[in-house]
Amino acid sequence: MTTESIAGATVSTQANVYFDGKCVSHSLTLADGTKKSVGVVLPSTLTFNTGAAEVMECVAGGCEYKLAGSDAWQTSGPGDKFSIPANSSFDIRVDQAYHYICHFA
Amino acid sequence: MTTESIAGATVSTQANVYFDGKCVSHSLTLADGTKKSVGVVLPSTLTFNTGAAEVMECVAGGCEYKLAGSDAWQTSGPGDKFSIPANSSFDIRVDQAYHYICHFA
Repeated sequence: MTTESIAGATVSTQANVYFDGKCVSHSLTLADGTKKSVGVVLPSTLTFNTGAAEVMECVAGGCEYKLAGSDAWQTSGPGDKFSIPANSSFDIRVDQAYHYICHFA
Repeated sequence: MTTESIAGATVSTQANVYFDGKCVSHSLTLADGTKKSVGVVLPSTLTFNTGAAEVMECVAGGCEYKLAGSDAWQTSGPGDKFSIPANSSFDIRVDQAYHYICHFA
């Protein structure tokens, strides 16, 4: 099951553009104050740093990712989630597109 | 005045990726059924075709645009809007980034 939509969101209209546009997201705030973002990573190999802990949920496409301190690349496809601790990082490899929801823990 | 956020939106989680990622948007549906999208155009010169009529509202950055049938490039910055008829097109030139809301008429 993939999450096709998120209801009741207040959407920040200005996009977050990272890595010269290889990652573009829009920030959302839900009625209960929960913050998320919806975004896409285009073909690239990137390293993302976390402030708060995050859960990345794939909604379309896919990626390979490697958490800090791990040597293992793992795959993530539609419906899959992976968690990144606070103040950490992960590498991500995308061949086509990785569409995601970022949940902040 | 720029529109910094849109409340009460149902957000499609999968991004719309156009022109190899030079334009990325997310589609929104409001409670009354109105559809919009929020997106960004990265540095490029592109031609967009319209189906339905659209109003493009700049929320950050800026662009130059030229409507079909016009020879005049016009500038659009934060808070500015321009309208495109249905079944038409416009050219857009972006130097840095053009963050927008697309309102469907």
